[in-house]
Amino acid sequence: MKQNSQPPLRLLLDSLCQGNRKSISRIITILESDKNDHKALTIELLAALRQKQPRQAIRLGVTGTPGVGKSTFIESLGMHLVSRDLKVAVLAVDPTSHTSGGSILGDKTRMHNLSREASAYIRSSPTGKQHGGITNRTAEAAFICEQAGFDVIIIETTGTGQTDFNVADTVDIFVLLIAPEGGDELQGIKRGIMEVADLILVNKADGPLESSAKKTAAEYEAALRLLQKRIQDPPNFPKINLISAQLEVGIGQAWKDIQNLVQWRKANGIWDLVRNEQEILRFRKELHNQFVQLMSQDKNLAKLQLESEERIRKGLEEPLMAAQQIMQSLNRKSIGHDLDN
Amino acid sequence: MKQNSQPPLRLLLDSLCQGNRKSISRIITILESDKNDHKALTIELLAALRQKQPRQAIRLGVTGTPGVGKSTFIESLGMHLVSRDLKVAVLAVDPTSHTSGGSILGDKTRMHNLSREASAYIRSSPTGKQHGGITNRTAEAAFICEQAGFDVIIIETTGTGQTDFNVADTVDIFVLLIAPEGGDELQGIKRGIMEVADLILVNKADGPLESSAKKTAAEYEAALRLLQKRIQDPPNFPKINLISAQLEVGIGQAWKDIQNLVQWRKANGIWDLVRNEQEILRFRKELHNQFVQLMSQDKNLAKLQLESEERIRKGLEEPLMAAQQIMQSLNRKSIGHDLDN
Repeated sequence: MKQNSQPPLRLLLDSLCQGNRKSISRIITILESDKNDHKALTIELLAALRQKQPRQAIRLGVTGTPGVGKSTFIESLGMHLVSRDLKVAVLAVDPTSHTSGGSILGDKTRMHNLSREASAYIRSSPTGKQHGGITNRTAEAAFICEQAGFDVIIIETTGTGQTDFNVADTVDIFVLLIAPEGGDELQGIKRGIMEVADLILVNKADGPLESSAKKTAAEYEAALRLLQKRIQDPPNFPKINLISAQLEVGIGQAWKDIQNLVQWRKANGIWDLVRNEQEILRFRKELHNQFVQLMSQDKNLAKLQLESEERIRKGLEEPLMAAQQIMQSLNRKSIGHDLDN
Repeated sequence: MKQNSQPPLRLLLDSLCQGNRKSISRIITILESDKNDHKALTIELLAALRQKQPRQAIRLGVTGTPGVGKSTFIESLGMHLVSRDLKVAVLAVDPTSHTSGGSILGDKTRMHNLSREASAYIRSSPTGKQHGGITNRTAEAAFICEQAGFDVIIIETTGTGQTDFNVADTVDIFVLLIAPEGGDELQGIKRGIMEVADLILVNKADGPLESSAKKTAAEYEAALRLLQKRIQDPPNFPKINLISAQLEVGIGQAWKDIQNLVQWRKANGIWDLVRNEQEILRFRKELHNQFVQLMSQDKNLAKLQLESEERIRKGLEEPLMAAQQIMQSLNRKSIGHDLDN
């Protein structure tokens, strides 16, 4: 393994486990890198940390459509936690836009107060390419923050469908923020997200919007009752509460609900069950990832793929048949190349 | 190849190309099946149709959040096309909900008038499992409808993020329906979808909502100007128009815009370029698909995977490292099993 300009692995890990911010950022940068030596280093880092009796924090997903007040809520909750001597990391999953590659977030002045706290750490990460087969490393970044001593890892996502479900597969508790508004949108994207939410918070429940927020909460209560009970839900969950992130109303209650949920799940064996299933999912996604790498790095397979694509572009070959033929040749013969060259 | 109770392939294909509805439905059912012999039959069917100088229709994607009036618009446009002696197929991509497997659509009485037309064909299809590696066969179903003689294939999707982008990769023209509403939601999911839309229609531009619709259209015009020009756009596209699907206002204009766009793209070589890239994408997705099949059907690999998952569940192994090891063993040795057993 090439070390390049990286410090020796052991020093980097020791420094991480002491909570050194530069080490956290450096390691997350390595995780997110596409370079081959960084990919190898990532696996080595994660495997080494696993030897050390890894710590667990609470991983909290926060989602909601743009404008619902996610940043304000996260800042408000984060300040509440910091005031209780808890260390908070915020990982914002930033979906790069589909065609231009541009970024939706990027406003570094969001969460102004929280970003100035010594016991808070905030970082934005890209979700990676849609079709390039490159998975994001949000789960791994959360694991790194756990080893650096943070107590709560908040993972923020921007309500764009698939990204939300990916984040739901990465966190212990998933919070859905909704705005006070009419009820006939209780379908589609919200329906799907509702089914993975543990806590639904109707934000902006203050001033003129308060009665509208109450009505919205009642509508969502009714909708929740239609959903099948999940094994991971204690009696009163998924729960719906009113908050005002701006006025810091309901934030303490939300944190109590989160703590109660964590305790119940730990006491009932659900916590470990969910975490273990998430690890299995990481494994399966990584298999996909490595398959894409194999196809591009093995010279024979890359050549076969290129030739097929040329014929497909000319309309000479059915894509499904071409794929079947390549998989058969992968399956039948020894490839004779090493993956990690 | 087992024929089971299927009629001989040649008869089925002849009947399809004569526009026989039972044959269309039977073939789409085969496409969507998970059974191994159906998968083999699918590839054989598609490859045989490709030998026959396949016809092309206009593939039109229609998206928009729930409640925006997609069904009304599709019925209205469909009836307009039927009145012009065009044959219309509607494929509704039905995202089965994330955890319960329940279906959002399913209202068979949608598009009541269109469904009674002899030259219209309507079908709902599931999008398939999210993480199971099973891709949907919407592109293939559209191809089947083209070979059955339909002139316009409308693919309806329900505005749930990733499904939209998958449909955008399957169609020639992508139409985004929006509701007349305030402007600060011009971010997130809509931002990403706007970038793949060719035609944006502000629906419900009638009665009391007309001025609100005009304002919304102006806001989207402004937002569109911020986006980078795409190679597939003629001078006045992507275009924004006001319609009322309910009152059938603006439907004729929308169809003219679609036709103009088709003509411009064909004249400028863009049409073939986009279709060819979509075929390449189908090929790459199918490689993934077949990889998942290989992993589950080859006894050695399935065993290795199972053992890794057991260790991962006990926290004894880093998932990324386990994936790397399996791929290395896939890479190094001959597997010696046949894929299509």
